[in-house]
Amino acid sequence: MPKPIYVIGHRNPDTDSIGAAIAYAQFKNLQGESHVRPARAGELNAESRFVLKHFHVPAPELLSDATGLDLILVDHSEIGQALPNIEQARVHEILEHHRMGDLRTPEPILIHCEPVGATATLIAERYFSSRLTPSPAMAGLMIAAILSDTVGFRSPTTSDKDRDVAARLAPLAGLDLEDFDRRLREIRTQATASLSAAAILGSDFKEFHMGELRLGIGQVEVMGADALAHRKQDILTEMREVLEARGLALVILMVTDIDAQASDLWVVGDRLDVAEQAFGPISQGRVHLPGCLSRKKQVVPPLEEVLARRGA
Amino acid sequence: MPKPIYVIGHRNPDTDSIGAAIAYAQFKNLQGESHVRPARAGELNAESRFVLKHFHVPAPELLSDATGLDLILVDHSEIGQALPNIEQARVHEILEHHRMGDLRTPEPILIHCEPVGATATLIAERYFSSRLTPSPAMAGLMIAAILSDTVGFRSPTTSDKDRDVAARLAPLAGLDLEDFDRRLREIRTQATASLSAAAILGSDFKEFHMGELRLGIGQVEVMGADALAHRKQDILTEMREVLEARGLALVILMVTDIDAQASDLWVVGDRLDVAEQAFGPISQGRVHLPGCLSRKKQVVPPLEEVLARRGA
Repeated sequence: MPKPIYVIGHRNPDTDSIGAAIAYAQFKNLQGESHVRPARAGELNAESRFVLKHFHVPAPELLSDATGLDLILVDHSEIGQALPNIEQARVHEILEHHRMGDLRTPEPILIHCEPVGATATLIAERYFSSRLTPSPAMAGLMIAAILSDTVGFRSPTTSDKDRDVAARLAPLAGLDLEDFDRRLREIRTQATASLSAAAILGSDFKEFHMGELRLGIGQVEVMGADALAHRKQDILTEMREVLEARGLALVILMVTDIDAQASDLWVVGDRLDVAEQAFGPISQGRVHLPGCLSRKKQVVPPLEEVLARRGA
Repeated sequence: MPKPIYVIGHRNPDTDSIGAAIAYAQFKNLQGESHVRPARAGELNAESRFVLKHFHVPAPELLSDATGLDLILVDHSEIGQALPNIEQARVHEILEHHRMGDLRTPEPILIHCEPVGATATLIAERYFSSRLTPSPAMAGLMIAAILSDTVGFRSPTTSDKDRDVAARLAPLAGLDLEDFDRRLREIRTQATASLSAAAILGSDFKEFHMGELRLGIGQVEVMGADALAHRKQDILTEMREVLEARGLALVILMVTDIDAQASDLWVVGDRLDVAEQAFGPISQGRVHLPGCLSRKKQVVPPLEEVLARRGA
C-alpha cells in the first residue's frame, strides 16, 4: 500500500480547515488516489463537532508532528500555523485563501491561493470543474465551511464565488442555506456562552489609543440578546480586571447579534461619560445600539469624535 | 481610463515569459479587462524576436522599474528575477510554474503555481476552461512558449498537460508542432553561433569535484553537427583560458544535437587520458558520442568511474 498523503488544515482548526481537508481528500479519492486521507492539526471546535455529527462524517485523524509525512495543506501556508516540524514534511500541494505564507518547498508544487471567503469554495470548484458530484455529506461539509468562514456571507471577505458555489452545493446537500446558517450560529453562541469569561472577552479584543486615553474594545457574536445574560457578572468582573491590569480608561465589550442587527455595549471604567456622550445613557453597565455591528465603523469613530471635540 | 495593469515575466525574458505575458493580457482583454497590457522586463532574445515576427505580434512594452505599478506576474515569483523595486508595486496575481519564490503580498491575491513545463500551458488552460478561443497568433505564441520551455517536450519538466494543451492549440494556430519546433531550434542554433565564445561556453557551465580533480563541463544545444564548426578555434581558446584561470584539470564542452541524438565532446586540459578512458580516443580535441544527451547521466558518471577505479 502506498504511503498515505494527509490533507490537513491549520492548528486550532476551524470548520473550513476541517471541512476542506475532508472534502478535498474525498475529491482525491474519487480521482483514484485512494491513499489520500483527511487529517487535523488540533482539537475540533464546537461548531466543527456539530457539523461532523450532523453529516455523519467521522473526525479526521489527529496529527501532532509533520516529520517525515506526506501532506497536502489546505487553508494555511504559514509555518507558524502548520503542524510542528512542517519543514521536515513533504508538501505536495497548497490550496488556500489567505495571502501566501512563508512556507517554501524545494521543488515546484501545485499552489492555488485565491482571495475567496473559504478554502471549501476552491474545493467545490474542483469538484465542479472535474465534473464530479460531491456526496450530500461532502456538499454539506463544504457549505458549513463556507458559511462559517464568511459568517453567513456577511464578512467583507465574501466573494461572488462563495455565494455561487454554496447555492450550487445546497440542493446536493438538501440544505436551506439561511436555515443552516442560523443553526451554525446557534451552536457558536452556545459554545461562546460556555467559555471562560477571559476567553469570551479575549477572543477578539483590541486596544485603541485616542488622544490621551487608552481604550480596550472586544467583540463577540451571539444569537439572541440574552445569550450571555447568565454570564454577565462574570464577564464584567473580567472586564474590570483587564481595565486595571492594562491601565485602560474604558473597556467595552460589543455583544453583537447579527440576526437582530444590533449590539449591546457593555462598558466598565472611569470615563463612562465619554461612552455616554458617544452612545447615550449607560444603564447597569450597558447600552443597546440597534443597527450597530461594526467596531471599526460604528464604535471607534463616535468615541474618537467625542474625544476630539473635548480636546478642541 | 483606469490605471493599466501590466502582465510581465522575468528579467532576461525567454519566450515563455514573453508569450505568457502577451497571451494572458489578451485573455484578460477578452474577459472585458481592457486596461490589462503585456510588458517585458528586458531585451527580447533571438527566439522571441523570431516568434513575435512570425505571428505579427508587436513586442510588449519594456519596463525597467516596478515602483508604483500594477502588475500581474507570470513565469516568476522570485524578487531577484522580477523588475527592480518589485516590493514597491501592487501585484495582483502570480501565475507560474517554478517553485514559489520569495515574493509576498500584503493581501491575499490569486496565486497559481503548478509544476508544468511552461507558464503558457496554464494560460492556455484558462482560455479553454473559460470557453474562450485563442486567436491564431495567441495560440502560436503559447505553442512557441511551450516548445521553447520544454525543449520540444524533451525536458524532464514536460508534463502531459503541456503535450495536451499544445496539441489542442496547434490546429488553432495552423502549426505542425514538430516542424515548428525544428524552426525554433534552428533559430536558437543560429543565435548561439553568433554569441561570443565566452557566452557560448558560459551559458550552461558547471564545475565538478571528483576525488582530487576539478573539472568544468559546459553544454550547448545546436542543430546539426557543424553548427559551431566555424567558431571552434575561438571556443577552444576560451576553454583553455577558463581551464587556467580556474585551475581545472579538464574543461569539456558538450555540443549536443538533439535531432541527431548525439553530442560532440570538446575537451582541453592536462588529463585527456581520463577523458579518453571514459569516452574513447580524442582526436583534434573532440570525441563524438552517439546517443549522448545528458551531462548528468551520461558524461559525469563515466568520468567518476574512471577516477574511482584509479583511486582504488
